[in-house]
Amino acid sequence: MLAAVARDRQLHVEDVQDPVPGSGDALVAVRACGICGSDLHALRYAPNMKEMMEATGAPSPFDPDRDYVMGHEYAVEVLELGPDTAGVPAKPGDLVVSMPIALGPTGIEPIGYSNRYGGGYAERMLVTAGMCLKVPDGLDARRAALTEPMAVGLHTVNKSRIAPGESALVLGCGPIGLAVVASLHAKGIEPVVAADFSPRRRALAREMGAHEVVDPASEPAIAVWQRVDGGRHPLVIFEAVGVPGMLEAAMRDAPPQSRVVVVGVCMEHDRIQPMVGIVKELEVLFCFGYDPLEFQGTLESIADGRLRVDPLITGVVGVEGVPAAFRALADPEDQVKILVEPGGPATPTPTAV
Amino acid sequence: MLAAVARDRQLHVEDVQDPVPGSGDALVAVRACGICGSDLHALRYAPNMKEMMEATGAPSPFDPDRDYVMGHEYAVEVLELGPDTAGVPAKPGDLVVSMPIALGPTGIEPIGYSNRYGGGYAERMLVTAGMCLKVPDGLDARRAALTEPMAVGLHTVNKSRIAPGESALVLGCGPIGLAVVASLHAKGIEPVVAADFSPRRRALAREMGAHEVVDPASEPAIAVWQRVDGGRHPLVIFEAVGVPGMLEAAMRDAPPQSRVVVVGVCMEHDRIQPMVGIVKELEVLFCFGYDPLEFQGTLESIADGRLRVDPLITGVVGVEGVPAAFRALADPEDQVKILVEPGGPATPTPTAV
Repeated sequence: MLAAVARDRQLHVEDVQDPVPGSGDALVAVRACGICGSDLHALRYAPNMKEMMEATGAPSPFDPDRDYVMGHEYAVEVLELGPDTAGVPAKPGDLVVSMPIALGPTGIEPIGYSNRYGGGYAERMLVTAGMCLKVPDGLDARRAALTEPMAVGLHTVNKSRIAPGESALVLGCGPIGLAVVASLHAKGIEPVVAADFSPRRRALAREMGAHEVVDPASEPAIAVWQRVDGGRHPLVIFEAVGVPGMLEAAMRDAPPQSRVVVVGVCMEHDRIQPMVGIVKELEVLFCFGYDPLEFQGTLESIADGRLRVDPLITGVVGVEGVPAAFRALADPEDQVKILVEPGGPATPTPTAV
Repeated sequence: MLAAVARDRQLHVEDVQDPVPGSGDALVAVRACGICGSDLHALRYAPNMKEMMEATGAPSPFDPDRDYVMGHEYAVEVLELGPDTAGVPAKPGDLVVSMPIALGPTGIEPIGYSNRYGGGYAERMLVTAGMCLKVPDGLDARRAALTEPMAVGLHTVNKSRIAPGESALVLGCGPIGLAVVASLHAKGIEPVVAADFSPRRRALAREMGAHEVVDPASEPAIAVWQRVDGGRHPLVIFEAVGVPGMLEAAMRDAPPQSRVVVVGVCMEHDRIQPMVGIVKELEVLFCFGYDPLEFQGTLESIADGRLRVDPLITGVVGVEGVPAAFRALADPEDQVKILVEPGGPATPTPTAV
């Protein structure tokens, strides 16, 4: 089968052996798999990533120096159930999603950052059958594939403890920043101010529910929040950029007693001024992932229209075009979320769902 | 009157003019005033401190390039009430404490970091009469002077949201770390593990209620917590050292989903690895000061014995000995909390209360 294999910090589109389902696995055909910004990072920083994952105390057998296939935002069709899958709700022909976690023979492995459990930048892959959630009737694979990044947005908003009566400033309108905006909107937070250098991404933030958008090149984001909100509501700042210096800037701009929520993945060392945090008694909340209920709730919210994902989906590409899609994602004006669809166009192609 | 005047990053013991109470002020005689580690920092970093205070959005008229007198942990005797003090509870002869905040003619000023409102490293000073709390009968000035730092400990523990069933690791057993230990003990937290390089401070931590102490030079603090607690209770780490690198180390050692509470005042830039915080979903809570109810509650807890302060008080000194006391505090084996007592010994003298 065709797969975009990560090797030596580059992607190589190759014919590889089809995966064979082991105990508890389902063999599935990829119908749509979103390309995540973390994968662009990971290709460059895989060794750091492994080190960081292990910092959680859960050593992983992942070896980034060996081949692996990324892609953890997938909607897939079940082809075949492996051994020890009696009673699982998934059956061949079902369109399903799952948290990208596999229960493998040596323990839990993150799908897409594993040498055993390749991700969705391929024609076929393995998932843990018991973790599959059937996509509700009427929801297509493209929208269903957005479950994973939208769940990150919901989890981030949940962890922030933001409540109606508080306001939000979202720094960075990549897919995760936009997912945060969507969940803030669904929660009734007002105002939500979103900042990005890219006009296209600012327009998307408005479509996802931001009440005001700001180009930080022309005006400080915090100044726009002050103008729009008038300081009437406590502020929660969401840092969804993930480059060095952003956290320090967010802490500098944060009003006293406010929360700074870090969801942008900065894989380098970063500098802060602790005294700024102390004098203002800031809370800095680092967020990652989601829990199973958040994942399932997100799928349901997308299906019933409470969570709108259409504006995010800007392009599709076949497996052979994944390297070109990674390059296209470097330009924020060009693409936001590209879905990999085996059999799709050879180069990233704009699409509307 | 005699005062230890801060000028050019040094202390100069001089005869200065007695302060004259303005509207709302009380002229008071200092009975005991603790020397705070922040003052040792402040003497060195006063310009940063002013900058940081202003980062809260509350510009202060404090000019560290002009003379000022520090000392904000005071128990004082009211000598004379100034104009516009009708109805205040304080009257001449009362032993009182107050939050070190003065409501001056140009707004709020921090007592001890103000050119107008000098602190307790002097024979006399001004406080805002309406903010004075009468020291309960039977509590002496020495113990009452500990209200301020102990209130920081209580506030830090309150902000941490720690609850029985959780455990604590306190990094650094200076006065604030010890105050945190005391408040954790009063709250029934178990186990409390405290770390310090100094044998004397470790012994004090035990006296204040730590269940286990650790010398980080011989064993990592987190390893001792793991051994003592067995990972049975969620952990809250209190960083009470305040030197660069401590926050990064605390984040590295923190278990997933835990809280790191920063109360050590690091006045320099510091480096962290955001990815460590993200992967473990840490909360970093920066703490500062206390609120009026916490201050009052601390005074009451010291008076009724729930909060034990005696082990902290290791020395006394007259105003003329304040510079020598600052030097003595550089050695953690020598002194922990030195109280300035006008008329006291010319050099720091060990004492038991």
